[in-house]
Amino acid sequence: MAQDNGQPGSTDKNKNKKLWGGRFAGTTAASVEAFTESISYDWRLYRHDIQGSMAHARMLARQGLISEQERDAILKGLAEIESEIEQDRFTFRPELEDIHMNIEKALTEKVGAAGEKLHTARSRNDQVALDIRLYLRDEGRVLDELLAGVQKSFVRLARRYLGAVMPGYTHLQRAQPVLLSHHLLAYYEMFGRDRGRVADCVRRLAVMPLGAAAMAGTGLPIDRRFVARELGFDEITANSMDTSGDRDFAMEMLFCLTVIQLHLSRLAEELVLWSSKEFEFIDIGDRYCTGSSIMPQKKNPDIPELIRGKTGRVAGALVALLMTVKGLPMTYNRDLQEDKEQLFDALDTVKASLSITAELLDNTTFRTDRLAEATRGGFMTATDLADYLVKKNMPFRQAHGVVGRIVAHCQERDVEIDELELDELRQFSDLIEEDVFEVLSVEGSVNSRVSEGGTARVRVEEALERAERQLGMT
Amino acid sequence: MAQDNGQPGSTDKNKNKKLWGGRFAGTTAASVEAFTESISYDWRLYRHDIQGSMAHARMLARQGLISEQERDAILKGLAEIESEIEQDRFTFRPELEDIHMNIEKALTEKVGAAGEKLHTARSRNDQVALDIRLYLRDEGRVLDELLAGVQKSFVRLARRYLGAVMPGYTHLQRAQPVLLSHHLLAYYEMFGRDRGRVADCVRRLAVMPLGAAAMAGTGLPIDRRFVARELGFDEITANSMDTSGDRDFAMEMLFCLTVIQLHLSRLAEELVLWSSKEFEFIDIGDRYCTGSSIMPQKKNPDIPELIRGKTGRVAGALVALLMTVKGLPMTYNRDLQEDKEQLFDALDTVKASLSITAELLDNTTFRTDRLAEATRGGFMTATDLADYLVKKNMPFRQAHGVVGRIVAHCQERDVEIDELELDELRQFSDLIEEDVFEVLSVEGSVNSRVSEGGTARVRVEEALERAERQLGMT
Amino acid sequence: MAQDNGQPGSTDKNKNKKLWGGRFAGTTAASVEAFTESISYDWRLYRHDIQGSMAHARMLARQGLISEQERDAILKGLAEIESEIEQDRFTFRPELEDIHMNIEKALTEKVGAAGEKLHTARSRNDQVALDIRLYLRDEGRVLDELLAGVQKSFVRLARRYLGAVMPGYTHLQRAQPVLLSHHLLAYYEMFGRDRGRVADCVRRLAVMPLGAAAMAGTGLPIDRRFVARELGFDEITANSMDTSGDRDFAMEMLFCLTVIQLHLSRLAEELVLWSSKEFEFIDIGDRYCTGSSIMPQKKNPDIPELIRGKTGRVAGALVALLMTVKGLPMTYNRDLQEDKEQLFDALDTVKASLSITAELLDNTTFRTDRLAEATRGGFMTATDLADYLVKKNMPFRQAHGVVGRIVAHCQERDVEIDELELDELRQFSDLIEEDVFEVLSVEGSVNSRVSEGGTARVRVEEALERAERQLGMT
Amino acid sequence: MAQDNGQPGSTDKNKNKKLWGGRFAGTTAASVEAFTESISYDWRLYRHDIQGSMAHARMLARQGLISEQERDAILKGLAEIESEIEQDRFTFRPELEDIHMNIEKALTEKVGAAGEKLHTARSRNDQVALDIRLYLRDEGRVLDELLAGVQKSFVRLARRYLGAVMPGYTHLQRAQPVLLSHHLLAYYEMFGRDRGRVADCVRRLAVMPLGAAAMAGTGLPIDRRFVARELGFDEITANSMDTSGDRDFAMEMLFCLTVIQLHLSRLAEELVLWSSKEFEFIDIGDRYCTGSSIMPQKKNPDIPELIRGKTGRVAGALVALLMTVKGLPMTYNRDLQEDKEQLFDALDTVKASLSITAELLDNTTFRTDRLAEATRGGFMTATDLADYLVKKNMPFRQAHGVVGRIVAHCQERDVEIDELELDELRQFSDLIEEDVFEVLSVEGSVNSRVSEGGTARVRVEEALERAERQLGMT
Repeated sequence: MAQDNGQPGSTDKNKNKKLWGGRFAGTTAASVEAFTESISYDWRLYRHDIQGSMAHARMLARQGLISEQERDAILKGLAEIESEIEQDRFTFRPELEDIHMNIEKALTEKVGAAGEKLHTARSRNDQVALDIRLYLRDEGRVLDELLAGVQKSFVRLARRYLGAVMPGYTHLQRAQPVLLSHHLLAYYEMFGRDRGRVADCVRRLAVMPLGAAAMAGTGLPIDRRFVARELGFDEITANSMDTSGDRDFAMEMLFCLTVIQLHLSRLAEELVLWSSKEFEFIDIGDRYCTGSSIMPQKKNPDIPELIRGKTGRVAGALVALLMTVKGLPMTYNRDLQEDKEQLFDALDTVKASLSITAELLDNTTFRTDRLAEATRGGFMTATDLADYLVKKNMPFRQAHGVVGRIVAHCQERDVEIDELELDELRQFSDLIEEDVFEVLSVEGSVNSRVSEGGTARVRVEEALERAERQLGMT
Repeated sequence: MAQDNGQPGSTDKNKNKKLWGGRFAGTTAASVEAFTESISYDWRLYRHDIQGSMAHARMLARQGLISEQERDAILKGLAEIESEIEQDRFTFRPELEDIHMNIEKALTEKVGAAGEKLHTARSRNDQVALDIRLYLRDEGRVLDELLAGVQKSFVRLARRYLGAVMPGYTHLQRAQPVLLSHHLLAYYEMFGRDRGRVADCVRRLAVMPLGAAAMAGTGLPIDRRFVARELGFDEITANSMDTSGDRDFAMEMLFCLTVIQLHLSRLAEELVLWSSKEFEFIDIGDRYCTGSSIMPQKKNPDIPELIRGKTGRVAGALVALLMTVKGLPMTYNRDLQEDKEQLFDALDTVKASLSITAELLDNTTFRTDRLAEATRGGFMTATDLADYLVKKNMPFRQAHGVVGRIVAHCQERDVEIDELELDELRQFSDLIEEDVFEVLSVEGSVNSRVSEGGTARVRVEEALERAERQLGMT
Repeated sequence: MAQDNGQPGSTDKNKNKKLWGGRFAGTTAASVEAFTESISYDWRLYRHDIQGSMAHARMLARQGLISEQERDAILKGLAEIESEIEQDRFTFRPELEDIHMNIEKALTEKVGAAGEKLHTARSRNDQVALDIRLYLRDEGRVLDELLAGVQKSFVRLARRYLGAVMPGYTHLQRAQPVLLSHHLLAYYEMFGRDRGRVADCVRRLAVMPLGAAAMAGTGLPIDRRFVARELGFDEITANSMDTSGDRDFAMEMLFCLTVIQLHLSRLAEELVLWSSKEFEFIDIGDRYCTGSSIMPQKKNPDIPELIRGKTGRVAGALVALLMTVKGLPMTYNRDLQEDKEQLFDALDTVKASLSITAELLDNTTFRTDRLAEATRGGFMTATDLADYLVKKNMPFRQAHGVVGRIVAHCQERDVEIDELELDELRQFSDLIEEDVFEVLSVEGSVNSRVSEGGTARVRVEEALERAERQLGMT
Repeated sequence: MAQDNGQPGSTDKNKNKKLWGGRFAGTTAASVEAFTESISYDWRLYRHDIQGSMAHARMLARQGLISEQERDAILKGLAEIESEIEQDRFTFRPELEDIHMNIEKALTEKVGAAGEKLHTARSRNDQVALDIRLYLRDEGRVLDELLAGVQKSFVRLARRYLGAVMPGYTHLQRAQPVLLSHHLLAYYEMFGRDRGRVADCVRRLAVMPLGAAAMAGTGLPIDRRFVARELGFDEITANSMDTSGDRDFAMEMLFCLTVIQLHLSRLAEELVLWSSKEFEFIDIGDRYCTGSSIMPQKKNPDIPELIRGKTGRVAGALVALLMTVKGLPMTYNRDLQEDKEQLFDALDTVKASLSITAELLDNTTFRTDRLAEATRGGFMTATDLADYLVKKNMPFRQAHGVVGRIVAHCQERDVEIDELELDELRQFSDLIEEDVFEVLSVEGSVNSRVSEGGTARVRVEEALERAERQLGMT
């Protein structure tokens, strides 16, 4: 084609001739095309590729590298292509390798020589870096919204069940009674940190790479800062070689995604536990469960299980890219093409998991009777008794020992501490008095924990209000 | 439908009603269907699913659980479905979740009540275990052939270039001269071990799981060993609960795949190095390289780079499944659904990498002049000189020291050892005599290494003949 | 020293001069010594290093490369060194880098020039390959014993509790009643596969590498097969370059270890669940639990938790080595030094985990009352009812639907299936008759599952006897 | 002891009795102690444990929970313990499990009942969270300094070699000539991003956890914000349950470390390549290389190889913790104990790697003659020729094609572009004129790339000055 051989009007003998094919003797082997193409997945970047090309074209015109007419033809052509792709009327061609070449070729077919000028002063190396950065900046916003959505579901549940008590666990052993809302708001914190990490990642990657060209910069009189402003970036990358070989942003996003999915996996584990007959703390709406092909009575918590299972997938994507980058010399190496599928798959997985988690939480009912029942027994207020003794000036370690012996005594007799008579209790320490029974009650225990961040109702209400404020729910 | 509500003739109000839906109040949320479906990827198992169902149906008839007419209807229906899928005339329905349900539903639509009997005495838990085992057994054969194909390419190269010398490297430093064919045959060994690992993996997974049902076995009078024989398995699984929750076979295959790709990554690194201007040891055919969108003179070793880059991908798949399995209680948990995409992707990646590697090797030319040139200089026969002294009874450590000082002396004067006069050499040890110059030549050095497995031509020829024999190339 | 400068009798000016220092101008920087040394961990290989050196020395003498006197001096010296190390009287010197140099240097200090001859016709590259192979062959035996030990603990428990019923779970939902012994024997199978994998790994690595020398073989007249026989290997490695750069054996062992620890993690998850107040299926002996520094009543299942937690550690070691090997050119690269610490740590972790697991199981009591209670309710025999209808010739899918509706009906009324009257049941299908109540009982259900590998007592007894036989426990 | 049985003055019968042992019947099994202890590695936290305890004691006194005398006794005792540990006079006892218990016990032995009061209103769960956060905050500072140190080494080299040209590579193919200083400063950018990531991580983790107690908060009247101020934290954690189970900070630090080591691995790969005979771009000082035990002439780039190899180790540590955290229910589970060894090992590895890298760079000499020579030939200014045509208004794609054909033409004739006559060049495009030969020179090419971030000397000088300013080197 014209743009390949530089001779407008020459016969097009080889539809598949590559845009870079000038010096090559033969055609590319079909197996090589199949092995090296990326269009089957990087088509996803089309919007950002076009967005970047538009800014680039505006800059080229501003700098006199193309005419205003050429610029306008390019902008119009690109807009058409975008709309064709969105309406599913665009044919992606594997022999054109990637989204960049597919769009450029289509543009040239539309607008002729102006299209052949678009790649002036850039390379696919900086172009793809720009595309991914633009893409991840957008995805970062989506993630932030989805994370906020999950936070909101937690806050709604925490509000709905304010006052309900449940056992707090360590080592999956009942430890101390807490408010269900306190437990739920722990997840609010976790996903809040995720939002912070995503924001840091996006801030660090929102640096404009175009102009690095292949890796040495360009001698054409471009204006990188103009392109940056057009695209809403505050900064441009500082070293063209670094720009070409850098994939830190992809790794950092994959790490953020991995931690999000890990947080979801912890929630999922709890939802699975809570759905079990043994816990029976929640009912997940039928529409959010599936059944068994053989056991008619089964109602399985498939969604949390799948979310938990997909944690490996996201972490695997991170590991994949880490291993890919290891030991690569400067600057761009084709190995780096492997970044995209990992990013796409991990983003899809995490976004779907966040979205369905919010739905699932909204369709989950807590059985507050079962939760309350579970706080009875199990010596869960033993720490309160120890603190009671501490307040009476017994050194903590002694108090811990006294209570340990009381518990052992109760276990032998198969009773709870508050079933003992005062006299019996006093055999262990004469610091114990009538008022001890207050601290041994579940409500007394919960509401006593007024330290900042603690589970006392007053503290949880404060936390809830703060969360609602932060999420704009009030 | 009939098979859903158990009342033949009832009106079909809900096309999407689940096969397991008996006890469920509502319909499944669309987002849940999208999140939980696996048909978008497990359709790949259709052939093995049908193969397993056919054997199962034959057994059911043999045991009197279905009639011969029912069996024949089932077999005919399944064969039709297989052919429809292969001719791309089958519509997969996401609301039917997976390949098992899609095929069973289509079967029942074809043959009525007989189809509803196919799932007798089995569960999707043992069914999918069977499907994957059948699938991996087949893929194991394909891998073995592809590995043998790569081995053959190495053997052909080793035969073609028999006699050519090159530097052997440790630490990427030229160490001792070797035969190029010796270097190439090292890869023959590596991929040979891979074949052994794949074979062990297939042997271990070729155990028939059907009959475990959900996880407790079944009370229906089935014959598991008959099914095993029908499917070419020697053994049946021994414990139904283990059968239901086991994914060792998937992890082991992913490990085998990872090591294969690691071996390919080492080869790829060498091909990249050898393609560089600095080494210039090989020419990869133009059809197996690609160019640059900006630098017209570039010819890039993209295929080895991509193969090297994809190592992360395969290892990532392994990590994904390891993490998924971690901490799952018995028996089947939905998390395990995540095994398939990792397997599929890793198998696709490794098979494509092996296939293109064989092609690439067949299209690679070694520049024996450059290889030979690289063996000159660099004191690569220094070890030979040390061995020469050892043969004259100098303790090895002393010999090592003497040669070290000779090398330092040469470096100062910027000459090679064999450029020194005998007198000069004898200043370092009077054990050195005229015959030393033989051992200092590249050919002398190479051919002296006659220890088994060594690089002497006589040894390499033996190894080559053995390899050709093993691969049936003679 | 003499062996360093090749001039016996010269003054020893530099105690730390390297055995390889001949051509080097300066001394090694202290930071470099610290960064590169491996003696701080590879001292562990001392026994295998000495074992290999002894065989090597015998071969050298047999081939006339050293005298019989020298051989005897070497053997005696090495035996002394081994005993010094075992009695903790040996001083390892970091400036001698690794176990090989430390031992060789000590030997030379003991026996003079004979010691300087030991390194004849070998390199540290093949020496370390031999050491690790010998080490892993031994460790493979230890692992096999420990795995058998865990299997025995399971078999003892299965024998002790034969007859006890419990719920079998899928998706952590009660699915069908099973025998506790059946559940326990599922682990017997899992660890049995691990033994098979370890055996395959050891078989594949038990190939003698010595004689590959640095990577090209040697010109000295060695006899590799003699060394192999001396060390109990059936085979020698086939290609010296492959031998030098190969670490497949280390990766394969790390994979085997990872799967073992994954199996342990699944058991650990169950032990943690079963220790919870909600399940309360087991009591772990006090000596195998720990308490809380703040909550006096807590008794935590720390050991299973730690085992589960250490799964990441072992898998991390595997990932570490995979990543290290990725993209390394032939043959030996110093990167490979990183194999040992990963192997040592993973082996230590897995061996300790296996050992304490066996102890823990021996100190665990099952609460059969709680297990039995858990099988009541939850419609766990619903599948039996479906099978009952299938036996009466209702197609399975219809039966599944009928039972699903019965379950829904029961749930609405909050009763179990066997609490329904026959008439009530018959409203769902008139195939249901009086004998249905047998199949609805837990014992009836369990013992009906007589398919091979099923949970019927007769099958479990067979499996138990087979296991006892295989473990030599009868 | 007194603090265990709550009865001051009672006989000490069991030296090893656990601080939490009140309710336990037996003593802990020795194997359990060995398996669960962490003191063998968490002793490293002693300084931060003491720092935290001191702040805690001050708060307890301020709030009236202990007396001023008790506080002073505690502070004095802790200071003594710290000094004993630093002078290696402290005996760590494995039976006391961890650093917290070891210090508390020693304190009580020193100061009696006051010591038993130190654990008032805290748990090991929040205590260890504090210790690690304090530790990582300090380590973050160390990392920042080490990263700056490596940056400085790069800047010094960039300054020293300002003006030297070398080939810039993509795909390890010579692409375009660049300044060596430009290449070096690419690493300045990479490690700069690492500093940013570490700073973000430290900022996010510098939140005070104490007061969460076991996981529910405490009822004792503590002042968390006072402790935060004492320890230099701006914030306190917001939810006690989240605080107890959170290990995000450890994962995030491990990720930062992994990326640092990945950056080092890329540098290491280049140093290895550049040390090879084929590149011969650098000389690493003898003191920073090691030799071969068999090949006297070898000088191996061991340090870069080890650094590259250790990348797996650091990434493995990250994977380990990710896998450990996966699927853990709230709040603290003992699995989390596995965080510390991974952190310690990864920090040690990365710190040592950074430190030795800076030294190594300072001891590396670039062979500017070889670098310059490598820029000649290879058509490295082909892009400049394309840009030349673009400036003359030929569309870029046509220019790319024209130059591709010129390159092919030169390759056939085995000449460089600038060896062609003008007439010959003009056969490909009559836009080419006499001034073309300027753009074809290496210096012309380099200095033409004046785009921001490009390799033109003027740009590199600016970048260098900026870097020197940022690092305070001017």
